[in-house]
Amino acid sequence: MAKIGIKKKSKRVSAADIPHVGPGTPCGEWLRRYWLVVGIARDLYDIPQAVKVLGEELVLFRDQAGRLGLLGEHCPHRGTSLEYGDIEDGGLRCAYHGWLFDVHGQCLEMPAEPKDSKFCRKVKHLSYPVRELGGLIFAYLGPDKENPPPLPNYAPLIDRGGQRQIEPVRHCEYNWFNFFENSADPAHVCILHRNAGYGQQSWGDHFFSFTEMPRFEFVETHYGMKVVMTKPRPTADTEFIDEMSLALPSVIQVGDTEFVHAKMDEAALMNDGSRCEHMLFLTPNDDDHFMIFTADNYTGPVDDFFTRLKELRARETPAQEVRPYDKRKHMPYKGNIRQEDLVTQGTQGVLGERDEHLGISDRGVIKFRKIVRDAIETAINGGRPKGVVDKKQAHELFRLDTQVGIRARKSN
Amino acid sequence: MAKIGIKKKSKRVSAADIPHVGPGTPCGEWLRRYWLVVGIARDLYDIPQAVKVLGEELVLFRDQAGRLGLLGEHCPHRGTSLEYGDIEDGGLRCAYHGWLFDVHGQCLEMPAEPKDSKFCRKVKHLSYPVRELGGLIFAYLGPDKENPPPLPNYAPLIDRGGQRQIEPVRHCEYNWFNFFENSADPAHVCILHRNAGYGQQSWGDHFFSFTEMPRFEFVETHYGMKVVMTKPRPTADTEFIDEMSLALPSVIQVGDTEFVHAKMDEAALMNDGSRCEHMLFLTPNDDDHFMIFTADNYTGPVDDFFTRLKELRARETPAQEVRPYDKRKHMPYKGNIRQEDLVTQGTQGVLGERDEHLGISDRGVIKFRKIVRDAIETAINGGRPKGVVDKKQAHELFRLDTQVGIRARKSN
Amino acid sequence: MAKIGIKKKSKRVSAADIPHVGPGTPCGEWLRRYWLVVGIARDLYDIPQAVKVLGEELVLFRDQAGRLGLLGEHCPHRGTSLEYGDIEDGGLRCAYHGWLFDVHGQCLEMPAEPKDSKFCRKVKHLSYPVRELGGLIFAYLGPDKENPPPLPNYAPLIDRGGQRQIEPVRHCEYNWFNFFENSADPAHVCILHRNAGYGQQSWGDHFFSFTEMPRFEFVETHYGMKVVMTKPRPTADTEFIDEMSLALPSVIQVGDTEFVHAKMDEAALMNDGSRCEHMLFLTPNDDDHFMIFTADNYTGPVDDFFTRLKELRARETPAQEVRPYDKRKHMPYKGNIRQEDLVTQGTQGVLGERDEHLGISDRGVIKFRKIVRDAIETAINGGRPKGVVDKKQAHELFRLDTQVGIRARKSN
Repeated sequence: MAKIGIKKKSKRVSAADIPHVGPGTPCGEWLRRYWLVVGIARDLYDIPQAVKVLGEELVLFRDQAGRLGLLGEHCPHRGTSLEYGDIEDGGLRCAYHGWLFDVHGQCLEMPAEPKDSKFCRKVKHLSYPVRELGGLIFAYLGPDKENPPPLPNYAPLIDRGGQRQIEPVRHCEYNWFNFFENSADPAHVCILHRNAGYGQQSWGDHFFSFTEMPRFEFVETHYGMKVVMTKPRPTADTEFIDEMSLALPSVIQVGDTEFVHAKMDEAALMNDGSRCEHMLFLTPNDDDHFMIFTADNYTGPVDDFFTRLKELRARETPAQEVRPYDKRKHMPYKGNIRQEDLVTQGTQGVLGERDEHLGISDRGVIKFRKIVRDAIETAINGGRPKGVVDKKQAHELFRLDTQVGIRARKSN
Repeated sequence: MAKIGIKKKSKRVSAADIPHVGPGTPCGEWLRRYWLVVGIARDLYDIPQAVKVLGEELVLFRDQAGRLGLLGEHCPHRGTSLEYGDIEDGGLRCAYHGWLFDVHGQCLEMPAEPKDSKFCRKVKHLSYPVRELGGLIFAYLGPDKENPPPLPNYAPLIDRGGQRQIEPVRHCEYNWFNFFENSADPAHVCILHRNAGYGQQSWGDHFFSFTEMPRFEFVETHYGMKVVMTKPRPTADTEFIDEMSLALPSVIQVGDTEFVHAKMDEAALMNDGSRCEHMLFLTPNDDDHFMIFTADNYTGPVDDFFTRLKELRARETPAQEVRPYDKRKHMPYKGNIRQEDLVTQGTQGVLGERDEHLGISDRGVIKFRKIVRDAIETAINGGRPKGVVDKKQAHELFRLDTQVGIRARKSN
Repeated sequence: MAKIGIKKKSKRVSAADIPHVGPGTPCGEWLRRYWLVVGIARDLYDIPQAVKVLGEELVLFRDQAGRLGLLGEHCPHRGTSLEYGDIEDGGLRCAYHGWLFDVHGQCLEMPAEPKDSKFCRKVKHLSYPVRELGGLIFAYLGPDKENPPPLPNYAPLIDRGGQRQIEPVRHCEYNWFNFFENSADPAHVCILHRNAGYGQQSWGDHFFSFTEMPRFEFVETHYGMKVVMTKPRPTADTEFIDEMSLALPSVIQVGDTEFVHAKMDEAALMNDGSRCEHMLFLTPNDDDHFMIFTADNYTGPVDDFFTRLKELRARETPAQEVRPYDKRKHMPYKGNIRQEDLVTQGTQGVLGERDEHLGISDRGVIKFRKIVRDAIETAINGGRPKGVVDKKQAHELFRLDTQVGIRARKSN
């Protein structure tokens, strides 16, 4: 990424650029300014793990000393996949000719070369910095690999005395941004999810109403944007509040998980607010596939909170009756929030290729696309885009706003 | 479709244009001048039905009042497939944000927009006129949607006191025109189908003979072309006749279904002619897929004609012995006329891309391609192509010639 | 292929041209100067066999008189696949309209054409010369079909009093040259196959050692190249030798099959050398698929050599333990030489598209690519490339060097 001189014209991007993440694309270059989740620590065993990230074929592994490496999938010698290599002797050894690479991509051995050969020292394979935090494995695929920005101290991943869980990775087969911008669009909760979890407990029932929707505000923040949903209740001076946050480049935190999915004690929640940080990290594999990594941190009083949450989620099977003549591919989907999202987002097509008619209720989406476009432009013009942590703040907790409960009513 | 001025040079098309049906192609634009079958009434339930027509993704539905609609598959709001929408409240409602559309594509509701918003009135989604006739659902995808040509009163679909049947739709995975022009090629009946139904009853046996073929004539008609097959029998002054008709843009009527598949009383048929109108309507999904809709109207004396026809068709299983070493994909196929057609047409490749050597026995195919090319040229140059019904004849029965039986021998 | 005038500049090719075999490509045109194996005699029954060769869709058949034919797969009439035709009446008859072709592609009958038509004589379908030798079926797809070069008398295919076997064809789904040049790379045997057959018997154990590799020499020959592996043993004056040969355009002969897979008596082999000619013929279907035809000729004393070889090969199941969390696609693969090759070659990508860093141990590959490039250049510039047999030597045995055993140590 060339730094742009003062007099040069800034490069601009449009919404149609956002879905495209491959090397050399504006959005791809932007995403390479951040740490992205590429794996789950407990799922990384003593075998290499092939993973495609931003259109690039890579292989993730942990060497025998426990160090993490993320290398180009194909051996620089003659191209064989290192997915079938062996973790041994201080690195990852290609099966074909035994070239051995350490986690930095440095070639350590070439068994077939003359004993006195120096060739091995000259071969440094593509590698990216990798860090583990709170059970997730992050990689930085950006231009300044020797000096990457700080890995944000995402609150759910930092040990602060609560319980933590990492869900199994979810693999989705559509464009990543359909999922991401869906969180900037709270109206869909009242409509799409009206038959699902939100409608089957008191919080959803009186808050996410199809006919009497909450008020929505969209507030730009230092990390991205937050969605503020309010409803003038339960007294004349108070209002319910429910917030969701989107952090660049691809992180979502949902505030109301305890209400919606764990069905926790409502009164306590109203007074004390949410005690569960429920965070989703999206990583595009390519333009048509992405992964969702989910981390939670619960600091409330329930001992078996995640067991209970899991049980309740499992009960959210689609409630939709499927008639014998109904052969539609994704049936049934209604009654399970995640499947409802998948069906509606997965059939949208790609932003910039689909026709759209946006209304006032899409102002969150419009605003968020602008925030993302600005960040991409900042990145490709050489600046530090929103959400990249300043080195001076490297040790601060990275926390997203997701207030839930009752607050004094604001005039508006 | 721009009207061409008098002095402008007419646009020409070649045979290689015929297979290509997408928006903007000459053949695609021509096909959009006609009513095409897009579904079967009895198969359209209270759920939307996604259907691709001429390369366009659409969704067919019947609203609660019984009105038929054919809309763009993707919601104009943010692209979600309306195949997963709900039929309710006077239209089809998108699952994602609840936009409601009537059968004309008019947006009726946008639940998340402000109550006083007029945005909804301004959004009119892509829609095409749809009509039901005799159990089939036709749509007009042409340029003049407000004033489409008359839907032809295809004889088998009009109630004239007989029995009617609509067969299940057949989905084929090759180019539509391979199937269509196969009907302009009667020689294949004597050769390809010699081991199938045609060879196993007296009519086929003495008429569709491999070694002594009938005489073939190809007669241009107001609707397209008819194939006249004759054989000088049974007396010196008479000849057998068997006709098949091709109506533009994609309709076939076969005359000898009673002989060949229902194996009806031969003497009666010879004297009285066919009493079964057996009509096939082809609708291309795209260049590589098409649907066959089949309608019959029987006016003869047999009460359970279609039950009997179905039973006899079911018996036409391929008679071909398959040896243990024979791993060819489509085996067995011989002995069933429909499978014989599928194997030979499905492996032809696409007209204009394949090499061809046409002989005298291909003069029907050559003539028919010319008729189709002329019609396409008429359409793209602004005229009314053959087979589009004049408004003045909107109420006439649309009948194709398919005489079968014995007639006085014609000198030739 | 135009002959190039003396003053014209020669056409050059690069390594990146080698993988591409379609019509009109340099490598494709070069491969068409040779006889290629297109089938196995015992697998060709009384039905046509579709086979793609060098990107061309063809159909192989044997007529009722036992003559072999290789024709274009699609009937020249209207394109129907001749794979579904019938072998009868002196040729192959298309199912659609009964056109009949002899093994030379000459049309013999057109049943639907007028009895006095001469059209049939004028239609000559694409055909290539085919010959059977020792159980394999070879075709010449080159420019001079009337006067092809001699079919080489490949030693294992010529009856010289030994036992012969033809293995079932193997179909591989990657580029053919990955397999071919793997044989110019003996180092992989010591490394990739160290856990497989080579490591489990004395020959492999002391010869193909990971830590103390043999010495490798690469010698250009009249047919291509041979790989000479030596190790200074067992006495001070002697050395072990193991040779492998690569003959243009796509033939490999391996010398040590008796040691490695048949585990024959070592002492006898050391003294007498190999008595098994193990030859692999590669035929690219297209850029991403190729076939391996394998022929052996054994002239040693063991009566049931091939039964024994087959049994021993069958025992070479991958020995690799697969842990429950290991979901990699090709697991297990270690412990079976053929699967080890498949995994490492099948993931290499295509030469010219992959990044490479070649070392001293790749000098065999480098040299061999140069030999192939020279041969391609010779062919496309109008000459007789290496490995095409001169007519004057048509009757000589075509034998590749594959010495195995002990020889007097050479100074080097």
